[in-house]
Amino acid sequence: MKRFLDENFLLNTRTAELLYHDYAEGMPILDYHNHLPPDEIAQDKTFENITQAWLKGDHYKWRAMRANGIEERYITGDATDYEKFEKWAQTVPHTFRNPLYHWTCLELKNPFGIKDLLTPVTAQAIYGQTSEKLRADFPVRKLLTHFKVKILCTTDDPVEGLGFHRQIQKENWAVKVFPTFRPDKAMAIENGPTFNGYLDSLQRVADVEVNSWQNFLAAIRRRHDFFASVGCKLSDHGLETFYAEDFTDQEIATIFSKARSGRSLEQRDILQFKSACLVEFAKLDAEKNWAQQFHIGAIRNNSTRLLQRLGGDSGADSTGDFQVARSMAKFFDTLDKQNSLPKTIVYNLNPAYNDVFATMIANFNDGSVAGKMQYGSAWWFLDQKDGIESQLKTLSNTGLLSRFVGMLTDSRSFLSFSRHEYFRRILCNLIGLDVENGELPNDLAWLGQSVQDICYRNAERYFQF
Amino acid sequence: MKRFLDENFLLNTRTAELLYHDYAEGMPILDYHNHLPPDEIAQDKTFENITQAWLKGDHYKWRAMRANGIEERYITGDATDYEKFEKWAQTVPHTFRNPLYHWTCLELKNPFGIKDLLTPVTAQAIYGQTSEKLRADFPVRKLLTHFKVKILCTTDDPVEGLGFHRQIQKENWAVKVFPTFRPDKAMAIENGPTFNGYLDSLQRVADVEVNSWQNFLAAIRRRHDFFASVGCKLSDHGLETFYAEDFTDQEIATIFSKARSGRSLEQRDILQFKSACLVEFAKLDAEKNWAQQFHIGAIRNNSTRLLQRLGGDSGADSTGDFQVARSMAKFFDTLDKQNSLPKTIVYNLNPAYNDVFATMIANFNDGSVAGKMQYGSAWWFLDQKDGIESQLKTLSNTGLLSRFVGMLTDSRSFLSFSRHEYFRRILCNLIGLDVENGELPNDLAWLGQSVQDICYRNAERYFQF
Amino acid sequence: MKRFLDENFLLNTRTAELLYHDYAEGMPILDYHNHLPPDEIAQDKTFENITQAWLKGDHYKWRAMRANGIEERYITGDATDYEKFEKWAQTVPHTFRNPLYHWTCLELKNPFGIKDLLTPVTAQAIYGQTSEKLRADFPVRKLLTHFKVKILCTTDDPVEGLGFHRQIQKENWAVKVFPTFRPDKAMAIENGPTFNGYLDSLQRVADVEVNSWQNFLAAIRRRHDFFASVGCKLSDHGLETFYAEDFTDQEIATIFSKARSGRSLEQRDILQFKSACLVEFAKLDAEKNWAQQFHIGAIRNNSTRLLQRLGGDSGADSTGDFQVARSMAKFFDTLDKQNSLPKTIVYNLNPAYNDVFATMIANFNDGSVAGKMQYGSAWWFLDQKDGIESQLKTLSNTGLLSRFVGMLTDSRSFLSFSRHEYFRRILCNLIGLDVENGELPNDLAWLGQSVQDICYRNAERYFQF
Repeated sequence: MKRFLDENFLLNTRTAELLYHDYAEGMPILDYHNHLPPDEIAQDKTFENITQAWLKGDHYKWRAMRANGIEERYITGDATDYEKFEKWAQTVPHTFRNPLYHWTCLELKNPFGIKDLLTPVTAQAIYGQTSEKLRADFPVRKLLTHFKVKILCTTDDPVEGLGFHRQIQKENWAVKVFPTFRPDKAMAIENGPTFNGYLDSLQRVADVEVNSWQNFLAAIRRRHDFFASVGCKLSDHGLETFYAEDFTDQEIATIFSKARSGRSLEQRDILQFKSACLVEFAKLDAEKNWAQQFHIGAIRNNSTRLLQRLGGDSGADSTGDFQVARSMAKFFDTLDKQNSLPKTIVYNLNPAYNDVFATMIANFNDGSVAGKMQYGSAWWFLDQKDGIESQLKTLSNTGLLSRFVGMLTDSRSFLSFSRHEYFRRILCNLIGLDVENGELPNDLAWLGQSVQDICYRNAERYFQF
Repeated sequence: MKRFLDENFLLNTRTAELLYHDYAEGMPILDYHNHLPPDEIAQDKTFENITQAWLKGDHYKWRAMRANGIEERYITGDATDYEKFEKWAQTVPHTFRNPLYHWTCLELKNPFGIKDLLTPVTAQAIYGQTSEKLRADFPVRKLLTHFKVKILCTTDDPVEGLGFHRQIQKENWAVKVFPTFRPDKAMAIENGPTFNGYLDSLQRVADVEVNSWQNFLAAIRRRHDFFASVGCKLSDHGLETFYAEDFTDQEIATIFSKARSGRSLEQRDILQFKSACLVEFAKLDAEKNWAQQFHIGAIRNNSTRLLQRLGGDSGADSTGDFQVARSMAKFFDTLDKQNSLPKTIVYNLNPAYNDVFATMIANFNDGSVAGKMQYGSAWWFLDQKDGIESQLKTLSNTGLLSRFVGMLTDSRSFLSFSRHEYFRRILCNLIGLDVENGELPNDLAWLGQSVQDICYRNAERYFQF
Repeated sequence: MKRFLDENFLLNTRTAELLYHDYAEGMPILDYHNHLPPDEIAQDKTFENITQAWLKGDHYKWRAMRANGIEERYITGDATDYEKFEKWAQTVPHTFRNPLYHWTCLELKNPFGIKDLLTPVTAQAIYGQTSEKLRADFPVRKLLTHFKVKILCTTDDPVEGLGFHRQIQKENWAVKVFPTFRPDKAMAIENGPTFNGYLDSLQRVADVEVNSWQNFLAAIRRRHDFFASVGCKLSDHGLETFYAEDFTDQEIATIFSKARSGRSLEQRDILQFKSACLVEFAKLDAEKNWAQQFHIGAIRNNSTRLLQRLGGDSGADSTGDFQVARSMAKFFDTLDKQNSLPKTIVYNLNPAYNDVFATMIANFNDGSVAGKMQYGSAWWFLDQKDGIESQLKTLSNTGLLSRFVGMLTDSRSFLSFSRHEYFRRILCNLIGLDVENGELPNDLAWLGQSVQDICYRNAERYFQF
């Protein structure tokens, strides 16, 4: 029997142990997609207690607490930080077999060195120890260097000033912090007044009068240029599915003007506008050799009650079942025909679509860059052992695992970096098992090199920061 | 090598053996969803032979026999009971790796104590032994107590008089037998004259003139109250997908009147009516703190030939590929906004939708009841080892396995209770493997408790009979 | 640790080894679906070098090379055969965990006897050795007898003259080579002038004036009869999904005339025509007791760039996400109602639809032939260990594995026959594991017999060549 969560956690063969400890474990982290707040990095924020660092804003934990019958008051309400922690401690033993259970254990072990399980019995001691450590030893920059983060990319709206990124870069700090260009709001033409308000902001920061489709694109380009000047190498889009309606420039100009003057739109207008935006934004990425990312397949804010009470990202999001193959094909083909297809990473939230995504993306590899079209890491609800293994298997079976740019945290918390460790262990376990089963040659120098590529070097080569 | 079907069947680790034998095996059965005939329980029916108890009405076996090239005459036709049994015995060896193979072995072993495999060679002896035992030792009530059934819930139409349930309850028998409110026919407005005939029955038993939508609802409420008076705590719905069209009460009143007066309906009328019914029926469940169940995703009666010859439930049903996420979200949100969302169990027939279902349901946990929104057991075509493991994994990864209300037979046969044993072994095996792999702490007192919760206690707490 | 690719490759238990070596390994091959060129068999072609036999036309390898960053020139362009081989050798180590890696190793081992891994280091030697062997020992007929092929079925258009098939048959050669009737072009009414050109060819070879729907059917029937006279026992159709629109003969006659006279069609016309063709073609198969095959679910030619440069089958095809359940049901039911449902094999490309396909097909078993409705082998992107296991599991769980007609290569290359070996090993491994886990009785005589049935005898009985 293996011991729970020891140094060989998730490593079920000797080969897996060797691959992990001799090759993967020591690699630095290139966390090319997350939602960390740049201000907290710039200001080297110190968290007052573990609830602030760990429970605040973590809708994964909120969902588990609600499912466990905990009152909302102790989740997002006016209970004290310690009361909230107690309720979380009460929930943890009920999360066994959910990734939250492993994440909780891993995050207490590293960086806090706590090996006790979090339960109602240990709650008080663990609250004290972790909060103390956060205050004494782990302001956020220490956390980042502790986890050997070399580069991290936040997720930022085109209107952001990126002042914190620039501040950090000026300091020449060991950890490089870059922005990611995420123009979701610039595409959200269905939002009416909110969209127009957004365009007003864009107009201000871009110093372009955003009164036409052409000027809108000019303003976006200025922001794209500006992001590039702060070291940005990636864009990102959160979409339900791909949009690939036919459109003409004239049609889009008309739709834009309608929206800008506050007139109402048809559903088709909205889809055409989004389709045009995706193409135009991709062209900018292609020009600068950025990688574009697509997070596809979530249905968000399903509970009106929670949306009204807490806003978005409150734990009421799900996996969708949108048809996607045809529009994905058309979108990539449109760009490919014009020699404007950037390096691309697509993250899929519905595991039933793994094969559709992986096989469709791969049609557009053109030999220009190894691994140009990436089938991205298991994401959100799939960021657990089964989901990660499933993504790795689909990618292996239909493409080149060896060229995979690997893991990212996608997290809002500075305590999530053990997700890289989790991923690396699963990767080494999968390859180790193949070796011991005689399905791969027992050549650890070669396979270890590939593991390191997937853990770090492929990303470094691919993004070219 | 493990021996076939011995006491450690499906238990691949020592920990799994301990979990099963020390914790799961002894738990009683709360079979909260099945299709057992209440009259046969009330009258303590004795089966004449094994064909009557085992093959009659079992369309799982019929499908296998047809696939094996057996003539319909020996399946549902005029062959003798022994001839039918012989053809089944001839088919059994061809079912290896299908759940029918294991079910057949388990059901012969318990209650009949037969360890021989059913083949053409053993057919005659087994026919004799089992039929003899059925006549001598196992009238249906003995079968139920033999399997330690404490509570069972049949599936009943709102117009049923529930006389047999009341009779059994009056006797104060050790096994509690409750009805389940299944108003599928009350929603089937597309059926024209059949629907109107049904409303006539409803009118009679409810003693309400069913001449308007409001009166229809009043009649349904009366039946709901009546079912509650006989101890009912669950409703059930068999749907292809969720219906969640927008509607107004006035629209539904008009649609109802059109149907009641025999006029024809548009497709949209039908969908609106079904949508309205689902909401209204759910409100009744919420008022009485019942749990509503949804069996989603079957396409039924695909063979016109079999439908005309044998009627429904004849083995011509399949897994569908209906889009479901948006309408499921809208339906639950509609109820949640009105504080009318009952405890809910959703059973999904298409394993490709596991993640969609599990993540969508979980949005509507509100902290009021632990495990309020349940992702139900693997069902019908998924009621086998792979399907059960897959449901348990999806539930584990996206929710709280610890709060799961567990297994039910969903069967028409009194010989199906070993499906609980099958489920329990698979559950213990999964958790046992995690422990031995170091993915769960080796704390059997705690995990054994959780296993028992899932086998019995969670259901007891959740339904509150 | 097992040795890589030794005699027990993919066989993880002793029972699996026994099943494979004592039962499966020696069985001959009935390759009932492939795309081998009959002319090359008739003429007993000798390949000049390994690139000609192995890389030319293999779009699986092309995709991998593009993903690996290889320029198109070295894939399909004007580089020399040796340069292309070198680039492939450079790519092979990057394909680990992709089926190409195992296929490459297996195909070098058998027939060439090469155990070295193909890498840039070994490229030159292996190029020499294999090319030498191809010229000296392995003209294509020797390859076929080397692999113990007894019967193979090519894939042929109805207008083909089948001269090469007839030539081979006249020789009374040990390997039987039969055609398969694949009328995809005859259904492609959406293709306008190309379709009319095709009808002109049909008119010529059938010696029927193809000027009406009735005459079109008469011409098709003549070709069907002709194929039958050359030993054909199978048809095949490559479809995105099933077509099952309602239609009348009069409507189809009108649509046909419109198309034949070059007028444009509505989308509904196209779908009705395809629906009618599928029914009429199936009736011909039913009359002659052929088996009809359906390859369902690919989206083809997604890259306009590659299509224009290289034509179809150039590595730009993917898995689709078409809804399929309802139309599949309606199509089979239409035939079943008329007693015109032939033996049928359906191959599904999207593994998320495994359950939908397997459960829908099985509704139409009618007891006339054991295993009449077949859920076909894992296909194309699914032709790898995970995909094969997944197909075998779904088939096992929802039908009768014991009646499965088994594997086929579906290949354009004479070097692909080790895919039968690959499949057989996986099959034996799956059953062996069940036995050692105590999930199947340890009765190797019985299970070995079933394994042989699946490897060869079921197909022999089913197709009745």
